Amino acid sequence: MNVDLNSDLGESFGRWTLGDDDAMLGLVTSANVACGFHAGDPSTLRRTCARAADGGVVVGAQVGYRDLAGFGRRFVDMDPGELADDVLYQLGALEAMCRVAGTAVRYVKPHGALYNAAVHHTAQARAVVDAVRDYDPSLPVLGLPGSELLAAAEAAGLRAVPEFFVDRGYTPDGALVPRSEPGALLHDPDEVAARVLRLLADGAVEAVDGTVVAVRAESACVHGDSPGAVEMARAVRAALAGAGVEVRAFVAGGGGA
Amino acid sequence: MNVDLNSDLGESFGRWTLGDDDAMLGLVTSANVACGFHAGDPSTLRRTCARAADGGVVVGAQVGYRDLAGFGRRFVDMDPGELADDVLYQLGALEAMCRVAGTAVRYVKPHGALYNAAVHHTAQARAVVDAVRDYDPSLPVLGLPGSELLAAAEAAGLRAVPEFFVDRGYTPDGALVPRSEPGALLHDPDEVAARVLRLLADGAVEAVDGTVVAVRAESACVHGDSPGAVEMARAVRAALAGAGVEVRAFVAGGGGA
Amino acid sequence: MNVDLNSDLGESFGRWTLGDDDAMLGLVTSANVACGFHAGDPSTLRRTCARAADGGVVVGAQVGYRDLAGFGRRFVDMDPGELADDVLYQLGALEAMCRVAGTAVRYVKPHGALYNAAVHHTAQARAVVDAVRDYDPSLPVLGLPGSELLAAAEAAGLRAVPEFFVDRGYTPDGALVPRSEPGALLHDPDEVAARVLRLLADGAVEAVDGTVVAVRAESACVHGDSPGAVEMARAVRAALAGAGVEVRAFVAGGGGA
Amino acid sequence: MNVDLNSDLGESFGRWTLGDDDAMLGLVTSANVACGFHAGDPSTLRRTCARAADGGVVVGAQVGYRDLAGFGRRFVDMDPGELADDVLYQLGALEAMCRVAGTAVRYVKPHGALYNAAVHHTAQARAVVDAVRDYDPSLPVLGLPGSELLAAAEAAGLRAVPEFFVDRGYTPDGALVPRSEPGALLHDPDEVAARVLRLLADGAVEAVDGTVVAVRAESACVHGDSPGAVEMARAVRAALAGAGVEVRAFVAGGGGA
Repeated sequence: MNVDLNSDLGESFGRWTLGDDDAMLGLVTSANVACGFHAGDPSTLRRTCARAADGGVVVGAQVGYRDLAGFGRRFVDMDPGELADDVLYQLGALEAMCRVAGTAVRYVKPHGALYNAAVHHTAQARAVVDAVRDYDPSLPVLGLPGSELLAAAEAAGLRAVPEFFVDRGYTPDGALVPRSEPGALLHDPDEVAARVLRLLADGAVEAVDGTVVAVRAESACVHGDSPGAVEMARAVRAALAGAGVEVRAFVAGGGGA
Repeated sequence: MNVDLNSDLGESFGRWTLGDDDAMLGLVTSANVACGFHAGDPSTLRRTCARAADGGVVVGAQVGYRDLAGFGRRFVDMDPGELADDVLYQLGALEAMCRVAGTAVRYVKPHGALYNAAVHHTAQARAVVDAVRDYDPSLPVLGLPGSELLAAAEAAGLRAVPEFFVDRGYTPDGALVPRSEPGALLHDPDEVAARVLRLLADGAVEAVDGTVVAVRAESACVHGDSPGAVEMARAVRAALAGAGVEVRAFVAGGGGA
Repeated sequence: MNVDLNSDLGESFGRWTLGDDDAMLGLVTSANVACGFHAGDPSTLRRTCARAADGGVVVGAQVGYRDLAGFGRRFVDMDPGELADDVLYQLGALEAMCRVAGTAVRYVKPHGALYNAAVHHTAQARAVVDAVRDYDPSLPVLGLPGSELLAAAEAAGLRAVPEFFVDRGYTPDGALVPRSEPGALLHDPDEVAARVLRLLADGAVEAVDGTVVAVRAESACVHGDSPGAVEMARAVRAALAGAGVEVRAFVAGGGGA
Repeated sequence: MNVDLNSDLGESFGRWTLGDDDAMLGLVTSANVACGFHAGDPSTLRRTCARAADGGVVVGAQVGYRDLAGFGRRFVDMDPGELADDVLYQLGALEAMCRVAGTAVRYVKPHGALYNAAVHHTAQARAVVDAVRDYDPSLPVLGLPGSELLAAAEAAGLRAVPEFFVDRGYTPDGALVPRSEPGALLHDPDEVAARVLRLLADGAVEAVDGTVVAVRAESACVHGDSPGAVEMARAVRAALAGAGVEVRAFVAGGGGA
C-alpha cells in the first residue's frame, strides 16, 4: 500500500514569508509550488524548486487567479480563454525555475478559489484542462474526486488524480465543509493520522455528521501554511510508517529531469 | 548581403492596446515579444506568438523590470540574483506561449531601462546573461554594440548579437542620443531607410554632429509603438528590397519549433 | 428641463492611453474618474482632476475591483468588508488628486463588474455604500435605476442618483442588454440623441423588442473610450441644446472646492 | 526632557503578516503607516489606523515606491513629477483610512529605498516635499538629519523633523552603516536603550569606529518587523521611563481628528 503526500509550497512573496517550506519538503512527496499569480516571487519559486529537486520531491504547478491581494482565494469570473492563457503563463514560468533546478513541472493543481471553482464551474475547469493539454498532455491534474476538473481532465485524455484533505471536515456527500462552518478544520494530529489510515484501508472517511463517506484518493493533501502544519505532516508520516504504508509520489520525476 | 529587422511587440495589456502588431509582424523578421513584467498580458503574448509563428517571424523574449506603471522604463536598482530570477520567470512564461504556438523563444533582448542599464551596469548585465545561460545557452542575446551585456554574453559563451536603431540619433562615440535631447529620434522614413543602407554598405552611421561613426550590427531595430512606426518599417523594407538586401532573421526558427 | 452628462475618464495607465479625455471634458458635466484599481495611474488621475476643475466639470470617484489586467470587468467574489476598504482607499487617493487641483470628490460611481454586481449583489452593493457613508455621507451614489446599489444608498441616507446609458440597448424590463447579445450597443449618434430627448420628454425608452420602458434618470452616461465616443457625445449635446435642455451636473461643485 | 518613538507599521499584505503591530502600538507614540505601494492592503491600513487612534498614537504616512515585490527597498529612478503624484495618491489613500478611524495623517516619512534616496537625491527629495506641500503644508516631514529631504522640507516652509535610529550603527560622519556591512544593526536591547539615553542627554552617539558623533533628533525610530522588535522597543521605553524622559509624539493629534 502506498500514498502520495502533497502540500502547497513556495507561497512567500518578497519580504513576506509563509510556511516552513524546508521542513515540509522533508515530509511530502509532491510539492504544489505557487506560480507567482496568487503568491510566489521568482526567487522564492526558484529556491523552492531547487530544494524540492535536491530532496527528491516532485514539483507540480499550483496555478491560481492573478490576485496577490486576495491570495487567490476570491473567485474571479473571468473569460475561460483568458484563464487558460493565465494558466499557461504560470506553467511556463514555473517550468523555467524547474529547468534550472534540474527538474520539471510534473503535474498541475489549481489553487484556492480556482480549485473550488473547478469543482463545479465547467467552463473554468475546462479552461485549466485546455491549458494543461495544450502545454503537455502527459501532465496529470490533481483535484477533488467528483469535480468538473477531474471529469474534464479525463475527457481530454489527461490523467486525473483525486486527492484527500487530511485536515478538512467532509460533508455526508463527500464535499469539504466550508471554512466558515464548524468542523471545517481538524486540529488533532492523531485524529488526522487515524483518518488517513482509515481512508487507505477502507476508502472511507467519517463525515461531520458521523456518517461514513466513500472517498477515492491517490494523494493526501497536508496544509503547509497553518500553525501546526509541520507537526500535522509529521504525525501523518509517522502513522503511515507505523502502518507500513509507503509514501511515494503519484507521478515519477522527483529524482530530477 | 542580408540583415535582420527586429521590433518590440506584444506590449498591449488587458484593455490597453499598443502598436499595430499585425502590421509589424508582416514587416520584421524577429519579434521581441514582451513577457508580462513591463507589458504583455498572457492572452496578448499567446496571440502575438501565434501570429509570429504563422508568419515565420522568429520570437525573442523581451525581458524587463517588473514595472507595469512605468512600462519598464525606470531603472530599478535591484539585487542581481533577483533580477536573474525575474528574467528566468519571464523566459519560461513566454516559452509556454511559444510552445502552444508551435515555436520557441529563440533569443533574448532586455527592454527599456534594463536595456539601458545593461549597457554599462556590469552586475545587471551579468544577471541577464546568467539567466539566459542557465536557461538555454544556445540562445543569443541582442543588445547594443560595445555594451556590458554583449561582453558578458560572450564571456559566458553565448552568441552576442549587436543591433542598430534605425530611427535613433547617435553620438560621435556610437551611443544613442538620450531621448531628452535634440536629434534623439528621426522621423523621416526616407532618411531612415538611407541610413540603414549606408550602415549595411559601409558599417557606418552619421552622428548628430555630422561625424561618421563605425557601427557593427547584425540586426536593425524598428520601433513598433510610435506614430508612423508601420510606415517607417515599410520604408526600410522597401529600401532594402530596392538595394537587393535580403531581410532575414539572425537566428533560425521562424518556421516553427 | 435639464440633465447631467457623465462619462468614464482617467482610464489611461502609464504608457497606455485610453479615450480622448480632453475632448470629453469639454462635453460632459460629470467626470467619473478612475481611482487606480482598474485603471488610472496617479499622474493620469491628477491631470484629469486638474482639467476637470479647469473646465468646471464635477469629479466623481469611479471605484472598481483591484484588477488592472481585467480592467475591472471581471466579477470578484470578495469579502464585503474588504471591498468596503478597497473603496475607501480609492476614494481617498482620488480625493488627494482633487484637493491639489482645487476641487473634491463629489459623488461615487462603481465601475465595470462592480457596477454590474451592485445591481443585484446585496452584500457588495452595501459594501460600496458603507464605504461612502463612512467616508462622507453627503456624497451621492450614481447607479442603475432599481439596483441594489441605489436601494442601499437610500437606506443609508445617501442621495441615490439613477442614470441612463445613452448608447446601450434596454430589455423590456429596463435592464441593459448584455454586451454579448445583439442590440447591446447603439452606434448611430442621431438615434442616440433622439433617445435621450425622448427619455427627458417622456421618461421612457424603446427596448430592443420595440416595447416602451419607463426609465427614471437624473444623469445620462456617454461612453468615453469607444470609437466614435466623442462624436456621440457631441451629437447628444447638440440635440439637447437644440431642444432647449440645459446640461448641468446633478451635484454642485464643478467650479472648485 | 521628552522624545517621540516612531515605528514602521501596517506592513502586512493580504495573506501575509509582518510584525506585531498591536504590541508596537502600545509602545510607540508615532506610527509610520504603510500606504499600499510597498506594503499594506487597504484592510490592514484601516485596522492599523483604527488601533492607532484608539491608543492615542499619531499616524504618519509612510510613502514608498510602487514595488510590492521589492518591499520598496529598491531604488527606482523615476521621474520626479510622477514620484510626487505617487506620493499624493498614497497620502490620500491613507487619509481616508484615518478619517473613518477618527484621526488624520499628521506627518510624512518616506520608506526604504525612497528614504535612502531622499538623503542625497535632490530631485526625488523635492518631489516628496512638493507632494506634501501641495497636499497639506502643515504636515511635518520625518527624515535623516542632514538629508536633502529635510533641507527641501525647510526650504518649502514645512516642518522638518530629524530622527535617530536606535538600533542602527552610525558612521563617523553621522550616516547609517549600510546593512551589508558589519555593525549595521545592534541587537542588544540594553545597549540600544543606553544609546537613546546618551543621545537625549548629550546629543551624541558612538559611531562604529568608537568616535562620538553629534546627532540632532526629535524622534527615535524603533524597527517593527525584525525579530526582537517588540522586546527592543520595550527596553527603550523602560530606559526612558527610568530616566524620567517623557515619551510623546512630536506632533499633536494622537487623540483623534
